[in-house]
Amino acid sequence: MLKAVDEIRRELGEEVVSTDPDDLEYHGYSEISTSNTDERPFAVVRPQSTEQVSAIAKICTKYKVPMVPFGAKSSMEGNYSSPFSGICIDMCEMDKIVEFHPQDMDIVVQAGVNWTVLNEEIKDTGLFLPPDPGPTALIGGMVATNCSGTNAMRYGAMKDYVVNLTVVLADGTIIKTRHRPRKTSAGYNLNSLFTGSEGTLGIITQATLKLAVIPTNLSAAAAAFGSVHQAVAAASTMIRSGLPLAALELMDDQQMRSINKSGGTAGRMWEENPTLFLKFAGTENSMKDSVKAAQAICRTHSARTFDSVYGEKEIDSLWSARKRALFAAIAEQPKGAMVWGTDVAVPISRMADLIEESRAKATGLNLWNSVLGHVGDGNFHQAMFYLPNDDIGKNKVADCVDTMVKRAIEMEGTVSGEHGIGIGKKDCLLKELGPSTIGVMKAVKDALDPHWLLNPGKVFDE
Amino acid sequence: MLKAVDEIRRELGEEVVSTDPDDLEYHGYSEISTSNTDERPFAVVRPQSTEQVSAIAKICTKYKVPMVPFGAKSSMEGNYSSPFSGICIDMCEMDKIVEFHPQDMDIVVQAGVNWTVLNEEIKDTGLFLPPDPGPTALIGGMVATNCSGTNAMRYGAMKDYVVNLTVVLADGTIIKTRHRPRKTSAGYNLNSLFTGSEGTLGIITQATLKLAVIPTNLSAAAAAFGSVHQAVAAASTMIRSGLPLAALELMDDQQMRSINKSGGTAGRMWEENPTLFLKFAGTENSMKDSVKAAQAICRTHSARTFDSVYGEKEIDSLWSARKRALFAAIAEQPKGAMVWGTDVAVPISRMADLIEESRAKATGLNLWNSVLGHVGDGNFHQAMFYLPNDDIGKNKVADCVDTMVKRAIEMEGTVSGEHGIGIGKKDCLLKELGPSTIGVMKAVKDALDPHWLLNPGKVFDE
Repeated sequence: MLKAVDEIRRELGEEVVSTDPDDLEYHGYSEISTSNTDERPFAVVRPQSTEQVSAIAKICTKYKVPMVPFGAKSSMEGNYSSPFSGICIDMCEMDKIVEFHPQDMDIVVQAGVNWTVLNEEIKDTGLFLPPDPGPTALIGGMVATNCSGTNAMRYGAMKDYVVNLTVVLADGTIIKTRHRPRKTSAGYNLNSLFTGSEGTLGIITQATLKLAVIPTNLSAAAAAFGSVHQAVAAASTMIRSGLPLAALELMDDQQMRSINKSGGTAGRMWEENPTLFLKFAGTENSMKDSVKAAQAICRTHSARTFDSVYGEKEIDSLWSARKRALFAAIAEQPKGAMVWGTDVAVPISRMADLIEESRAKATGLNLWNSVLGHVGDGNFHQAMFYLPNDDIGKNKVADCVDTMVKRAIEMEGTVSGEHGIGIGKKDCLLKELGPSTIGVMKAVKDALDPHWLLNPGKVFDE
Repeated sequence: MLKAVDEIRRELGEEVVSTDPDDLEYHGYSEISTSNTDERPFAVVRPQSTEQVSAIAKICTKYKVPMVPFGAKSSMEGNYSSPFSGICIDMCEMDKIVEFHPQDMDIVVQAGVNWTVLNEEIKDTGLFLPPDPGPTALIGGMVATNCSGTNAMRYGAMKDYVVNLTVVLADGTIIKTRHRPRKTSAGYNLNSLFTGSEGTLGIITQATLKLAVIPTNLSAAAAAFGSVHQAVAAASTMIRSGLPLAALELMDDQQMRSINKSGGTAGRMWEENPTLFLKFAGTENSMKDSVKAAQAICRTHSARTFDSVYGEKEIDSLWSARKRALFAAIAEQPKGAMVWGTDVAVPISRMADLIEESRAKATGLNLWNSVLGHVGDGNFHQAMFYLPNDDIGKNKVADCVDTMVKRAIEMEGTVSGEHGIGIGKKDCLLKELGPSTIGVMKAVKDALDPHWLLNPGKVFDE
């Protein structure tokens, strides 16, 4: 590793490489991650260009040193940890918008661009990049994790926004997956192969991304229900009826209690019941039609309340309950505790069952727990707390997560809807897909990274 | 090959195997394909189950015999030809709907199910599968080609509807890519790897597909323009404005002439000018808003006419001009001539240039030619005719196609928007993506099909 670092220093310059202990610690450990390891990277490099990443990969391959791509450190499953040490490749300085084609509704960006900065930068053109993970996330990590968020039901996940990728392979070869067509049937879909591969097949250095048109008219609504089942049934009916919803989120009673405890939203206190948060977009007429139809559906599913709002301020205020959910939950955390935020997705017909089972199990174990769901995608997160030194408490949480994941698999679901596998869910993935399917993934891995140097210890083991 | 066929007969029964010369000819040659070869399959097998396909693959691998999956024979680039002979695996008898989950909005089908039959079967539930290629196409081929059609702008291509695939690998291993979640970040995206791989990585035997809600209200419009540039500019403005269009198609003046020559539509004769065909879906109010906005945009781009219609009959009548486009063009074909229908996609800002260049080139060579475009995707087809025995004429057409593909690549486009590569466009694909990117595809091919037995001679050569 020392030889590799020396050679990187010689080739790219001293300033690109850091072995500062704080820097190594920062890149190797996170309080919000469910999966930290004891190892730290041997060095952190901050390349400025695809060519520099290629040079680093060549050197790492020469000395058989692990390479771990690093973005905003916002992932939850240890996706950027360095369990085998090695060189951490921090993409933060590759943060340029390279080309912007408003007429073609696409943009070419380096991997270190932050999505909120990007959207701020281009908003005057009326375009935006829809996927909305944690606000600090960088494009490279978003692609590598196939992230999504509250916009996914209407707009799809990150994979749906990748037009092409520039990727550095393990041996330093630079490839571009495609040109810039919005649609193609030409050759294998390498975009989708690298998207969601968590840096184990190549290092994403640049991406061309599709953009969508910012809706000019928005409205929002919130509907409280007596049970999760009622809320999910209402959501399901809305989707099945073809209502053009822009977002559809669920917060359970505990989440709503947390919001109230944290002071409510703009002075408003909420019913502490499972609540759907909805967004509508369209012309004024179509929004009114949609809100009316949504209200009627919620009523038939025994909604206790249905509040709809128009106007930017009012929408922001109502929607802030959803936006602040994570922070409000974390505020309930005992001092020194860590949060475990699982992520599963199941067919929507099974979602309410799984949420209620998971809540009952955690509550039965006297664990504080709350659920937040991207209902339209059958995807939800259950948050629980544990104290790092309390093995019994931690095991209880782990037991809940295991059970929930196991049940999600039994319900034909997936062990990760949007957070990825990382270190934390390798066993789960094997249970979900079985050895033959994982065998195909490993064959692809072997073919593209024969020495398993790219982000080793993630997704599955050798 | 004889040994392989004997073993298949012994293991699966006589009735599964055909060596009837007409059957071999039918499976090896097509008049609508741009790329026929002289070889024919050695035998055609019609498996009844995934297990039978697996047994066939095991035997073919044992004797190193090529396997060519075969669907509806509707592809254009020789995707199902047998250039190295071998066993043609005709999926037509695996035509069962296996499971239907209306609440989850998905359906599990065998690869031999026809998409129009499927949609007819489920229409009472208000759901449908959006991709609309040629009406005879079967699900397996649709997935293998990543097909699309007129619905793609609004609904996406086939890849956007694949929840999971059951695939038989070259050695007979059966894998299922995923469970049944609508969204996942768990492991590599094998759905997208097999989708569009044209049967070269595995044989798709079953698929779970997402469904969409049939819009309850529809309207349609047609707008004629003085030039392709004006029509495309209007289309581009509509898309950029966020208008919720359900479809957006372009037919050039020649296409409109063909429609009139074939008798018009429901007695109506059309302006023989580049014409946009639009569809709108939504509530009555939202459709009215959309039609109004579309009309205003078309006017600012100097539309000569703008006709909008409501009501199923009126919409079908207007849209029949678009539906009958291919047949109307083929009706102009001289006796014995074959049609060459190319397929490229470019960023929309370059689309009008490429269409006009391509038309000018073909017209300059005295070739009958017409253009049909899926404008929203920057994807279009130019149709030309040639007589199989007229080498000079055929070379002229080939020259036009070559130039168009070359220009599409220069414009950052793709050599196939929806037809795939097959035999016909292997050189084009290499030009589009270059040897490093093709090298990654070949590495994946080597890993999953080390003897190159699956549909050999397609997409790229060994």
